[in-house]
This record gives sequence, structure tokens and C-alpha cells, in this order.
Amino acid sequence: MNLKAYQVAEIVSGNVVGDDQVLVNSLAKIENGDEGSLSFLGNSKYNKFLSSSKSSVIIVNNDLVLDQPLTKTLIRVNDPNEAFSKLLDLFGNQNLNRRGIDKLSSIDSSVSIGKDVYLGAFSVCEKDSVIGDDSKIYSQVFLGENVSIGKNTVIYPGVRIYNNSVIGNNCIIHSGTVIGSDGFGFNLDKNGNQLKVVHNGNVIIEDNVEIGANCTIDKATLGSTLVKKGVKIDNLVQVAHNVEIGENTVIAACVGIAGSSSIGKNCMIGGQAGISGHIKIGDRVMVQAQSGVMRSIPSDTTVMGMPAINYLDYNKSYVHFKNLPKIMNKLNDLFKKK
Amino acid sequence: MNLKAYQVAEIVSGNVVGDDQVLVNSLAKIENGDEGSLSFLGNSKYNKFLSSSKSSVIIVNNDLVLDQPLTKTLIRVNDPNEAFSKLLDLFGNQNLNRRGIDKLSSIDSSVSIGKDVYLGAFSVCEKDSVIGDDSKIYSQVFLGENVSIGKNTVIYPGVRIYNNSVIGNNCIIHSGTVIGSDGFGFNLDKNGNQLKVVHNGNVIIEDNVEIGANCTIDKATLGSTLVKKGVKIDNLVQVAHNVEIGENTVIAACVGIAGSSSIGKNCMIGGQAGISGHIKIGDRVMVQAQSGVMRSIPSDTTVMGMPAINYLDYNKSYVHFKNLPKIMNKLNDLFKKK
Amino acid sequence: MNLKAYQVAEIVSGNVVGDDQVLVNSLAKIENGDEGSLSFLGNSKYNKFLSSSKSSVIIVNNDLVLDQPLTKTLIRVNDPNEAFSKLLDLFGNQNLNRRGIDKLSSIDSSVSIGKDVYLGAFSVCEKDSVIGDDSKIYSQVFLGENVSIGKNTVIYPGVRIYNNSVIGNNCIIHSGTVIGSDGFGFNLDKNGNQLKVVHNGNVIIEDNVEIGANCTIDKATLGSTLVKKGVKIDNLVQVAHNVEIGENTVIAACVGIAGSSSIGKNCMIGGQAGISGHIKIGDRVMVQAQSGVMRSIPSDTTVMGMPAINYLDYNKSYVHFKNLPKIMNKLNDLFKKK
Repeated sequence: MNLKAYQVAEIVSGNVVGDDQVLVNSLAKIENGDEGSLSFLGNSKYNKFLSSSKSSVIIVNNDLVLDQPLTKTLIRVNDPNEAFSKLLDLFGNQNLNRRGIDKLSSIDSSVSIGKDVYLGAFSVCEKDSVIGDDSKIYSQVFLGENVSIGKNTVIYPGVRIYNNSVIGNNCIIHSGTVIGSDGFGFNLDKNGNQLKVVHNGNVIIEDNVEIGANCTIDKATLGSTLVKKGVKIDNLVQVAHNVEIGENTVIAACVGIAGSSSIGKNCMIGGQAGISGHIKIGDRVMVQAQSGVMRSIPSDTTVMGMPAINYLDYNKSYVHFKNLPKIMNKLNDLFKKK
Repeated sequence: MNLKAYQVAEIVSGNVVGDDQVLVNSLAKIENGDEGSLSFLGNSKYNKFLSSSKSSVIIVNNDLVLDQPLTKTLIRVNDPNEAFSKLLDLFGNQNLNRRGIDKLSSIDSSVSIGKDVYLGAFSVCEKDSVIGDDSKIYSQVFLGENVSIGKNTVIYPGVRIYNNSVIGNNCIIHSGTVIGSDGFGFNLDKNGNQLKVVHNGNVIIEDNVEIGANCTIDKATLGSTLVKKGVKIDNLVQVAHNVEIGENTVIAACVGIAGSSSIGKNCMIGGQAGISGHIKIGDRVMVQAQSGVMRSIPSDTTVMGMPAINYLDYNKSYVHFKNLPKIMNKLNDLFKKK
Repeated sequence: MNLKAYQVAEIVSGNVVGDDQVLVNSLAKIENGDEGSLSFLGNSKYNKFLSSSKSSVIIVNNDLVLDQPLTKTLIRVNDPNEAFSKLLDLFGNQNLNRRGIDKLSSIDSSVSIGKDVYLGAFSVCEKDSVIGDDSKIYSQVFLGENVSIGKNTVIYPGVRIYNNSVIGNNCIIHSGTVIGSDGFGFNLDKNGNQLKVVHNGNVIIEDNVEIGANCTIDKATLGSTLVKKGVKIDNLVQVAHNVEIGENTVIAACVGIAGSSSIGKNCMIGGQAGISGHIKIGDRVMVQAQSGVMRSIPSDTTVMGMPAINYLDYNKSYVHFKNLPKIMNKLNDLFKKK
């Protein structure tokens, strides 16, 4: 894609300072740019690269004060991060225009496929599955019986979706993710054997959800495991049977959520955190990375530690933990005197 | 499936109270049920739903005392959880009656396939692999050279089993799981390079084992990585080379077990726990979630923390940890007086 | 493979003590060996098996002093571990001599394939991808557009490599690993919705890198996520967008590395450890298992805990943590007296 500076300025609602005819054809970090690169300055830590950058055009904040005159072209905007995100979107969406059903796929005759769908090689669609308009199903994907995929959803290579799962519109699911595998439930019999609890429920993923690579989302025992609108899940996350995740909640990589727990909306769950089973996390809760949440948590709180407690309390206690050797030296003096 | 109340009662060895001709066609949670639903009451927390539930039939405990007369049909049993688990099994196993070898698969001529086997599209069976009677191998599965699958085992889409692995009878392996990948072993040479230790062993999974989605079980350097009878493993679990896991042990999601460690029988390993390499965990050991076990542990103990110590000791210490700011306030008074 | 003892001695530069014509055909642990087995004694803990072992030939240290005369054949070497690693390599590499392109694959006409390449069934190579000489791409692999695979690299079944990724020479990537999925980045809009940051960068894996099963390595927002020469990564590891990992660093299973962090060379990251985003880890740093590194760390340090601190300091504090109940008993006496 080739754009002139004035065209970029129109897209991001900015003002060109310099040559508005200069051509850009790629995006680059400010420190890596070259002729033809379009970069941005979103964090003052990177101001030092402004004069040395070889990028042809740099998007900067309206408020930025220059230490020295620059010969390169700038575009001034209200929010350089937001502006650049728009451009990333524009440059990135060019190769998603795939259409057509690959002949080397296996599609049951009962399957319903919408308009302008792409379905890649070696993908499988079992009985009664449905794919909505404009959705892109890459190669080597498995859709089990009665799976429903909404409109304009992208499913990357090697995703497996078990029977009866429902995926909404405008979703993105990355490679290797498994949706609808059996929940982990067993009853111990008298002989010490674990008897399987069969799972008859399903998974429902609502609209605008993105799920990273190699995640696992188990089906419910009965009813549905539910991921609500706008939820964003990073890679290698485990969501157990009958879990419910509220709107726009963001979950970082390697998190595990145990069975039947619910998480409210607009929460942020840090990487490698764990949530116990059968508990309720409120709205706008923040769980720090690696924390282990073992009890229900009210809305608007931040927690840390294992078991997780109030974030500030944890940090105060941890400061003392680090000082324990010093404290004990003083204390041992006291004990001796006693 | 349609069943009348008296037929359900026969299956679960219970007694009908009410209309024994009422028809049910699906299972539902007591709070979600509708006409035609069969529900159960297994936990007194849910007693409140008994009068409002719209389910046609509810399985309850023999001991349950009703606050008010009910018009709906009940079935009284000794153990509602066990009874319902039987019904989940019955309702859930209906779509596993797959048979036949999909033409769009790649099977070496030396492969041995038993009676009533299902093998789905785009699956690969390499030289000398064996599939026992009644086993169901879904689509997009990879069986390497000399892999052996027992009888009545279910392998879900996208499972990869490297050469020489042995899987027992009545096993279930969920999508994306990798069995028999190389163990993680390197020798540092004089130039700081890591030289690979080639792994010539294999993985043996005994009978009645269930393994969740996206797990990884590495082959042994020599000999076998061994998962014994009745072991149940949740999603995203890592089992390193030469590990041995004893009968009926249950391992929750996101656990990591390092190389050459052994775990006894009937253990329970909590989610995200880690087990160091070259240690021995006894029988009936419980490891709390997120704990890090760095030393061998005798049988019949429960541990927590990182490094893991006795469970009760950890909790006592953690209470004091949480109080450290208060304790330090008092202590600083003492230190000043000194 | 059949070798006589004198041939083995030549390979490992050792001296035969006993019958140099005895035949071996397999490798085995010293305690499991049988007639025809070749074993080694690399750790004095296993000396007790020396007399009872049924292995035909055992590799031992030059310095080993025998308690009693042995009738079996020994080969004495400087370093039995190194010697055995050579033999594991020799015995293990026999079935990697695959060649040829499976007809049941999907290869775009623009793809460039080197000499003596193997490409298995149901693999996909999209537009402009390149596979170097002697590389082995197993079944069910996905190579997106413009993916480059070097020479003599092995990609196991079910690996997914997104567009524009670059993989070096002599690499090994195990099943289920995903390379080049989108980084996890969103901008919150005024309505509380998370807007996706499109990722236009790629992943570069340099030469001699091994990556375990079911890992995830995200592409950069701009520029490259970079895994340098000789890095070894175990199973289920998450590497986020724009991360850089230095030469010969070793990363154990279940580790998570957040976005834009860099790790130096020759580091060792323990299992289930987590590294926060936007920090810099020096060279030769050791991170203990399950630690959470939240700040940059200078070279040549070892850290532990969450948040991670100096390893020895953590352990000293943890000793006191375990003693807190005892310490508090003493302290409460003091408080009462006050």
C-alpha cells in the first residue's frame, strides 16, 4: 500500500508539518524506520529517536515541543497511539480478503455456508454445522456436529470446535485453540476409581471476542460455558466447564479458571493467575499476575498473592517479608534480653 | 432420547413420587429446566429452586424433607449425584457410534485396524501402527510409526502421537494433545552451546486414562514415560520425559511435572502446581493449587506454597504474613523502647 | 542397528574392558537392560546396579573403581554422559531419513522447495513460502504466506506458522506449536470496548533453535519477535509480541514472557516462571521455577519469588516465613509483658 502524507493525515485526522506529498509504503518502529516508513511517537521515552529516525513520516502529539528543527515530515494528532492503531488496522487487513471453499476439505452435505466465506484445505465441517457470511475458516480447522459460526469471524488454522458450540459475529480465534472439550469431572467410586461425568452442555462465545493460540475452553456439564461480548483472551488460557466471563474482560496468557466460576465485566486478569472453582469475581476487578484467587471478590478491587488478598496489603506484607532477616536479627536481641 | 419417569427410576434404582408416566427428553440444571427436562438436586444450596423449577422430573435424596407439597414428579435415590452421572452418561454417549474409515485419510499399508473402528478425515497412520477394536480416531489425528492404540479408546481431532507410543484401552484423549514429543535435555559444550540429548524412549498410557486438551507428554530418554491405569489429567498439563504417574491420580489444569519425577497413586494435584525433576511423591498426596514441590513427599500428606511445605503450616504462616504490617507497628514500638 | 563393543568404543573414544566382540542392538537404562543392551553409568547413585545389570555392555568413567570383578564388558571413557549422548544421537536419528512430497498436501504453485525435503500428508504451504534443503516438514503442518524455513530443519505434525515468519537452519519445532499468531494488544475506547491493535510484524527464529510442543510465539506489532541462535524452549511456553530472547538461553516448560521484554544470552528460566512486559533481563541470569520477574535484572544474578528478588535473600526470608507461628508465640509473650 502506498500513501502520501496528506492521505495519512486525512485518515488519522491530523495536520501535516512538512512535505505533504512524501510517500510511505510500510509501518515501522521509530528506531527501525527507513525511507518510505511511517512511524509514530507515542511514549516520551522514545523522543530521543526523533532526530535520528530515518522514517519518512512520523506521527506525533499535538503538544510535542521540538528541541531542534526537523527536516522530516511530521503529522500532529491528538492521540498518536490511537492514530497508529488505525493505520496498523489499515495496513494489516489487506490479506484477509480470502474467499471460496477449498476442494481438499470435508464438508457434510447438511452444512450451511453463507456468502463470501473462505474455508481452507483439510478443514472438516460435520453434520448440521453453520458458517455465517464473510467468515474466514483457515486450513485444518475442525467444526464438529451442530457447530454455529457467526458472520465475519476468523478462525485460524488448526482450531478444533466440538459439537454444539456457538461462536458469535466478528470473533477471532487463533491456531490450536480447542473449544468444547469435555469438562474435568469425576466421581470416586468405592474401589478408588474415578468415574467420568459425561458433559452434555456446550460453549457459547458471544460477538467481538478474540481468543489467542492454544487455549482450551471446556463445554458445560449441563447448560453453557459462556464467554460474553468483547472478551479478549491471550494465549494458553484454560477456561473450565460452566465458567462465565463478563463483557469486555481481558485475560492475559497462561491463566487458569476452574469450573463453575464467574467473572464480571471489564475485569483484567494478569498472566498465569488462577481462579478457583465455584467462586464469583465482581466487575472491574484486577487480579495481579500469578495470583491465586480462592474466594469470591467484590467489584472494583485489586488483588494479589496466593491466596490472593488486597493488592496494597499484599505489597506491604511483602516488603516486611523481604526484611524478615533484618527484623529477626533485631528480634533475637530482644529475645535474648528477655 | 425420550424416557418416562418410571424408566428413569429403573435406571437409577430410585422410587417415583408423583406421575410415573411423565416424559423427559433432556437433562437440565434445576434452575434452568423446562417442560421435558430431567434435573437433580445434589447440593442443599439449590433447595430453593425445588419449588420454582420448571423441570418435569427432579431426582432428589431419599432423606430430603419437603417444606411444602410439590405437584411435580420426584425420583428419590440414595445418591442424586451418582444417579445423575449415570444419566449424563446415557444421554451423552449417543453420538459416539461412529464407524468406518474416511477415504480422505492417509494410512500406511502396514497399519492394523480392528473391528468397528472409526477414523476421520485427514488423519494419518504411519508404518506399523495398530488401532484396537471399537476405537474412535477423529479427524486430523496423527499416529506416528509403531504407535499402538488399544480397544474402545477415543482420540479427538488434532491429537499428535509420536512414534512408538502405546495407548491403552478405554482411554480418552482430547484435541490438541501431543504425546511422545522429545524430552527437554541438553548438554552444555565448551563453547556455551546446548547439545541435544536424543530421546529414544517412548510414552506408555495405560487403560482408562483420560487426558484433556492441549497437554504435552514427552517421551523418555530411555525406557518409558508412564501414565498408569485410571489417571485423569485436565487441560494444558505438561508431563516431562521419564515421569511416572500412579494409578487413579487426578491432575488439574496447567500443572507442570519436570523430568524423571514419580507421583504415587490416588494423588490430587491442584491447578497450576509444579513438581520439580527427580523427586518422588508418595500415594494419596494432595498438592494445593499453584504450589511448587521441590522435594520428595511422603504418602498421605497435603502440601502448599513455593517451595511447598505442610498445608496447615503454610496457612498458619500466611495468616501472620497478612498481619505483618500490624505486627511491625507493634514491634517498632518495642524496638524504640529498647 | 547392530554394533560390536569395539565399534562403540571407537565412536565414544573409549577403551573396552572385556569381550570387544559382544553385540549390542539397543540402548537401555542400566537397571532395565537386557542381553543386547548398551547402558551407561553416569551418576554414582546408580553404582549399585553395576553388578546386577543384564546389559551386555556398560559405559563407565575411567576413574571408576570396581568393588568386585565383573564378567560383563565395560567401556571406559572420560565422560560417560557425553559418550552416551553421542550414542543416543546415533541410535535416534535413524528414522529421520524421510524424503519426498506427499501427494495429499496443498502447495501453492509459487512455493520454493529445496533438495531432499520431506513434506507430509495434509500439510499446507501458502503463497511464496520457502523450504530449504534437507528440511523435514511432517504431516498436517501449516505454513502461511511468505513463510521461510531454513535448511535441515524439522517441523513436527500440526505446527502452525503464520505469514511472514522466518525459521532458521537446523531448528526443531514440536507438534502443536503456533508461531506468528497476533500479539495481545488492545486500546480501550470511550464506551469500554477493547479495540484490536493489528499486528503487522513477524517472528524470526534463528539457527539451531529447538521449540517444544504446544508453545505460542506471537508476531510483533511492528518489527520482529526474535528468538536468537541456539535457544532451547520446552513445552507450553508463551512468548509474547516483540520479545527478544538471547543466544543459547534455555527456557523450561510453562513459562510466560510478556510483550516487549528482552532476555539476554545463556540465561536459564525455570518452569512456570513469568516475565513481565517491557523489562530487560541481562545475560546468564537464572530465574527459579514459578518466580514472577517484575523488574529488569542485571546480568549474572539469580532470582526467586513473586515479585522476584535475589535468590538467597528469598530463601532466607522464606525460612523465617515458615517459622512465623513460632516467632509469633514468642512475640506475643513480649507484647503481653509490655
